[in-house]
Amino acid sequence: VHESTLSAGDVELGDYQHYMQKEIFEQPQALAATLEMIGGAQTLTPNLFGVAAPEMLAGVRSVLILACGTSFHAGLVARYWIEQLAGIGCSVEIASEYRYRVSVPNPEQLVVAISQSGETADTLASIKHAKALGMGRTLAICNVPESAIVRECALRFLTRAGPEIGVASTKAFTTQLAALFLLAVTLAKQNGRLAPEHEAGHLKALRHLPVAVQKVLALEPDIKVWATRFADKHHALFLGRGHHYPIALEGALKLKEISYIHAEGYPAGELKHGPLALVDKDMPVISIAPNDALLEKLKSNLKEVAARGGELYVFADADSAVDEEAGVHVLRLPEHYGLLSPVLHVIALQLLSYHAALVKGTDVDKPRNLAKSVTVE
Amino acid sequence: VHESTLSAGDVELGDYQHYMQKEIFEQPQALAATLEMIGGAQTLTPNLFGVAAPEMLAGVRSVLILACGTSFHAGLVARYWIEQLAGIGCSVEIASEYRYRVSVPNPEQLVVAISQSGETADTLASIKHAKALGMGRTLAICNVPESAIVRECALRFLTRAGPEIGVASTKAFTTQLAALFLLAVTLAKQNGRLAPEHEAGHLKALRHLPVAVQKVLALEPDIKVWATRFADKHHALFLGRGHHYPIALEGALKLKEISYIHAEGYPAGELKHGPLALVDKDMPVISIAPNDALLEKLKSNLKEVAARGGELYVFADADSAVDEEAGVHVLRLPEHYGLLSPVLHVIALQLLSYHAALVKGTDVDKPRNLAKSVTVE
Repeated sequence: VHESTLSAGDVELGDYQHYMQKEIFEQPQALAATLEMIGGAQTLTPNLFGVAAPEMLAGVRSVLILACGTSFHAGLVARYWIEQLAGIGCSVEIASEYRYRVSVPNPEQLVVAISQSGETADTLASIKHAKALGMGRTLAICNVPESAIVRECALRFLTRAGPEIGVASTKAFTTQLAALFLLAVTLAKQNGRLAPEHEAGHLKALRHLPVAVQKVLALEPDIKVWATRFADKHHALFLGRGHHYPIALEGALKLKEISYIHAEGYPAGELKHGPLALVDKDMPVISIAPNDALLEKLKSNLKEVAARGGELYVFADADSAVDEEAGVHVLRLPEHYGLLSPVLHVIALQLLSYHAALVKGTDVDKPRNLAKSVTVE
Repeated sequence: VHESTLSAGDVELGDYQHYMQKEIFEQPQALAATLEMIGGAQTLTPNLFGVAAPEMLAGVRSVLILACGTSFHAGLVARYWIEQLAGIGCSVEIASEYRYRVSVPNPEQLVVAISQSGETADTLASIKHAKALGMGRTLAICNVPESAIVRECALRFLTRAGPEIGVASTKAFTTQLAALFLLAVTLAKQNGRLAPEHEAGHLKALRHLPVAVQKVLALEPDIKVWATRFADKHHALFLGRGHHYPIALEGALKLKEISYIHAEGYPAGELKHGPLALVDKDMPVISIAPNDALLEKLKSNLKEVAARGGELYVFADADSAVDEEAGVHVLRLPEHYGLLSPVLHVIALQLLSYHAALVKGTDVDKPRNLAKSVTVE
């Protein structure tokens, strides 16, 4: 029997209208708690991931990440980080696809399972499947210590988001990102690719993250104004590139889940390969953190649909040169945050979905037909 | 200067209303022409892919496929084939994502570029990028012999679909699949994983493909009836698993491109991780070739949304046990085709999109804002 260590404050709404809103605003503390162990450290040790980690992470040359839903999007962001920082190949797969297909096992590969609850049925089955194929280097990234996936894996990193009650995941996602960034930096170090000054820089950026998140949360009034324009739409297209492409997917999923707007995420370069035909006044295009060159291309693509009322909403970086103009709306994030920028951008999108759902009057914390933990297959 | 070898019949509509319809119905011939070289052969040689192929394909232990749009979906199908048949790891990436990110190059990897026109700007740039990273084992799968991507690659396989004029790709896609299946079988053989009786079986299945396709085309009247029910919808969800998951993506893309219905493809197991919240009478769910166990799960998921009018349309296999019932419609394909089943199922979806677009009266061959070849970035 495990005794619960929750305090009443963890599960009471307090001044918030919904758990989702509370959980969005808890992200600075959730990130600080998750990153507590790096405290004043100037250096990282693989022990963060368990006592067997130094041995098990040594010599890892390839990573496979398995997850579902929002956790899958966290894995997709991690792929960019792991390949870029550690120089280690990384693939990410939907757990329900991996477990049912004939794949090529690599016994030396590190297999990472991501799940808030640690009980997601397909993710649990996929990690058992990987083990049955001879892959013993397994790492769980979960928010619940006693959970089945944590027990199934050799290594573990526990996010400390606290209980997440809203069905649409928010603080679990950003703390998963923090855990995965630590993993990428640790693998980079193990792989001899991390200069001490870069390590110190990454640690500093992580420690500053709760403050940076707080500044994004302060944009709520502006995002609320945008949300009122979205609430009557039936469609939305979210575009991103690189480590912001999974954030586009996540922004679309949030809007789907709680506002029932059919939003879809796309890699920005694919716009002209199909979805551009759909864009009109009922399908706004949201661009996540574009660099300026990409943005110019998007603007020129969208000129063609201006006659149908197509509008572009840009969540821009602090140093983007993009300006407001007819049909182009810009909201600038307070800080340009480099590799960790997905953590900030997704929070703006969480707020957008939350406020769009409020306008629509949906049941924000319990969207129709969705369960908090998908423990059936 | 290249002289055109097209005959008038290649570019005239004849008895067809649209090029897209003509090109859908040309698929038996396009596949037969593409597969002509295997004729009566009992055995495959790697020379199919060029004179340097025997040397260059020997020892390949990993494959990277780069493409955009519909060609990307062909690559996703090939991944299932290559891993299962050849036991070789395969990853597939959107060309515009690959070229702009920091990836981990593998000089021994076979890099495959897929493009109907051979001029797709992002795909061409991505193959140049891979070569600049030291990856010299390159293979182009294109429909146009003199094209830039063919010239850029060391190896080539030319599909013989003939000119494709409709913007929405149909016969180019299925001939790409045939080429990729040949590649998977060839790699399996090179990798010592292909028993002679299996090789003969795969060759037989390929040779019979034009006949099997003809039988799917004969379903047009039934599919036309389904299309009339779709044409007034604003959304659709396409679900698939395994090698039919990319076919779900392709079916959704076709419907988007020409009928302007916002269709989205999902791996079937992800339904409960978000999109189920959206399903109602305006968003039918289309299931591609499910196995019966998966179908039972889908049916139980959808029971929850029956009250909102959610309906399930199943493109079933010949031997599926699924029956029609309230809210569940079934169209059975004439033959169960094993690994090559995606080629048949996608044709049913092409017909569905075409007839939905006809009912809506859109410009089928030239959808708004889309170009046939995306030669800009």
